[in-house]
Amino acid sequence: MSDPVRIGLLGRGTVGGAFAELLTERGGAFAAATGRRPEIAGVVRRSEGDFDEVLERSEIIVELIGGTDPARDYVLRAMQAGRPVVTANKQLIAQHGDELFEAAADAGVQLRFEAAVAGVIPVVRVIQESLGATETAKVFGIVNGTTNYILTEMAKTGASFDDALGRAQELGYAEADPTEDVNGADAAAKMAILARLAFHTPVALDDVRYEGIEQIKPDDIAYAKELGLSLKLLGVAERRDDGISIRVFPSFLYPGHPLAPVEGPFNAVMVEGPSISEITMSGPGAGGVETASAVLGDVASIVSSTAPVHAVGERLDVVEDLSSAFYLHLEVADQPGVLAAVAEVLGRNGVSVRSVVQRGLGDDARLVMVTHSVAESSFDSALKEISGLDVLRSAPRAIRVIEEEFV
Amino acid sequence: MSDPVRIGLLGRGTVGGAFAELLTERGGAFAAATGRRPEIAGVVRRSEGDFDEVLERSEIIVELIGGTDPARDYVLRAMQAGRPVVTANKQLIAQHGDELFEAAADAGVQLRFEAAVAGVIPVVRVIQESLGATETAKVFGIVNGTTNYILTEMAKTGASFDDALGRAQELGYAEADPTEDVNGADAAAKMAILARLAFHTPVALDDVRYEGIEQIKPDDIAYAKELGLSLKLLGVAERRDDGISIRVFPSFLYPGHPLAPVEGPFNAVMVEGPSISEITMSGPGAGGVETASAVLGDVASIVSSTAPVHAVGERLDVVEDLSSAFYLHLEVADQPGVLAAVAEVLGRNGVSVRSVVQRGLGDDARLVMVTHSVAESSFDSALKEISGLDVLRSAPRAIRVIEEEFV
Repeated sequence: MSDPVRIGLLGRGTVGGAFAELLTERGGAFAAATGRRPEIAGVVRRSEGDFDEVLERSEIIVELIGGTDPARDYVLRAMQAGRPVVTANKQLIAQHGDELFEAAADAGVQLRFEAAVAGVIPVVRVIQESLGATETAKVFGIVNGTTNYILTEMAKTGASFDDALGRAQELGYAEADPTEDVNGADAAAKMAILARLAFHTPVALDDVRYEGIEQIKPDDIAYAKELGLSLKLLGVAERRDDGISIRVFPSFLYPGHPLAPVEGPFNAVMVEGPSISEITMSGPGAGGVETASAVLGDVASIVSSTAPVHAVGERLDVVEDLSSAFYLHLEVADQPGVLAAVAEVLGRNGVSVRSVVQRGLGDDARLVMVTHSVAESSFDSALKEISGLDVLRSAPRAIRVIEEEFV
Repeated sequence: MSDPVRIGLLGRGTVGGAFAELLTERGGAFAAATGRRPEIAGVVRRSEGDFDEVLERSEIIVELIGGTDPARDYVLRAMQAGRPVVTANKQLIAQHGDELFEAAADAGVQLRFEAAVAGVIPVVRVIQESLGATETAKVFGIVNGTTNYILTEMAKTGASFDDALGRAQELGYAEADPTEDVNGADAAAKMAILARLAFHTPVALDDVRYEGIEQIKPDDIAYAKELGLSLKLLGVAERRDDGISIRVFPSFLYPGHPLAPVEGPFNAVMVEGPSISEITMSGPGAGGVETASAVLGDVASIVSSTAPVHAVGERLDVVEDLSSAFYLHLEVADQPGVLAAVAEVLGRNGVSVRSVVQRGLGDDARLVMVTHSVAESSFDSALKEISGLDVLRSAPRAIRVIEEEFV
């Protein structure tokens, strides 16, 4: 058997520790698959270890230190020194992708980052390798386990957002500071990466419009349930005639939708294209060992292959004028003519109603409707007008609905 | 840009034609991903073309001729001549895997076959590459689109097996001779391949126990629906303490199961292991263009990498003594003591009942039950005894039930 594969490990936290352990456990299987046994040549932590020295001794660098500083510097220097890099660092790739991929191409080394997106689901490999030469029209899914857990909990127990978040924190599904998860920023970074890979285009974090789930009320979920709908925080990256669109937003799904049954801290990603129809992949969001497993797969692939895996093309335009169906929740005065007034505004703006539930009496009267797909600008105009109607007791609440039919 | 990638194409039927077309369409994307433009160096059909001449001109052979003869001979000769091979030929890999993988290893060339299993789902790549160095405990799923369409149709419309099969043939989801699909042999070949890859062990077709769906009655599906169950033809390959087990059998699933919502001509595969929990992948079963797309991905991977991708270890024992829960459908005499008689036999054989539906009067009286998990040998003993009870009006019908709970 050949020389061992010398791995320089940056970071020794939860994921770094799990990776080192997995490497020991699965060294034999790694050797069987690649022809070479792996070994840790050195470890650098934030507080100790000499990066240059570890770099010198290593032929592959595994970056699990997190954050963008000093991770960005280390990864760039490693590649400039001719070392392929595996990272699980989503912010690093989303924020500095252009620079990093250029450095990888210049040095002729691989940069792999399966663990950065969608936990244990091998979506990066599938998009880059299985589908690298086919046309991808759309990549979308549930790429944040924290918010999916919270929404599932709200739907199952009727809990408020705050209570469900507290429960997620108790179970370790949400961090002490959950801001980036619940406001959609984490999902936005992942969608920026997926869009870049699927469409072979540079994508900046600013190209992604995102909304979170902090504003979701339990009764939105309860009313929608009566219409058969379940709520997910979706990331959607799609090719449009005139460019691409990348967004993250809470959205209701009809029961036949492949993402509707994805519950708890799970992730799921769908890829659509003319020669594949659709592929759906789902699995648990990233825990330590799942992330380590994805990193190990990347390291094995580097040992087994030599070619660069990034094909970056022209920058595509980001398109803003989109269509969607909407759920609209109105707290209204309990008096005749309310439905007529609302319907008139919708109709005049070209918004067609698919289903309506009118419920409650007096101070609890509500009008809940789902529209057909409409230009978002038209819906926004209608919403603005409806906000001004004096029959409304509070601001209208609108949430997108995915209307597509599946088998 | 470097020299073009010269591809020798064996077979020019539906898939071969779709591949040639896709290659033309996606040549630019292929070149962007791999650095080299692809071109067809020559075509061999059953009736025309000189294999040796095409081999001489090609650096990669794509085998889409189907069947095992002359496919096996062509693929072996290609690899012996140092050419990597991509094939979509499930029977070739399932029946001659040992010989082919040995030839590939001896010649130091790649043999790729993503399109041979599970349509558009990249399960071969995920198991071999993403999970190549991790431990896989179980691979299972719906790997035959024809039978899944038939079972879906029976459940939705109450159609008989024959009528649903006829409809599948009309729609092109079943072949004129559907034997290998409906009797489980097609799924068995695919599971033999998946087990080989997941467990790094030689697997012969004879190692797979299989049953089909020809015996399924519409009222089995209807009764089970009342218990919340849906019926699928499952392939299950799992690692056991003392070896492996590979089986194909119709089975009921509870509604929370990730495979329960997979309907129509779709395939879905789940992979379980300690460091990944579970990954579920689903997509349409193979049509011409989906198969061609999988083949193209394999060709691109060969151009981008050099290492062999097969790690074959020791042959593992095939285990036969397994446990399962069962659905049991009995047409019984409408008289007192029937349930007691059946329950006595079950209890004495250690079979515990989870739910019962008793229905109908006189000549239509039925007893439908679902058991908890039990050794199959115990259930078989009970079933044999029950068959001999004089209160039975016809032979008992038993179908396995997957009992595991999912999130």
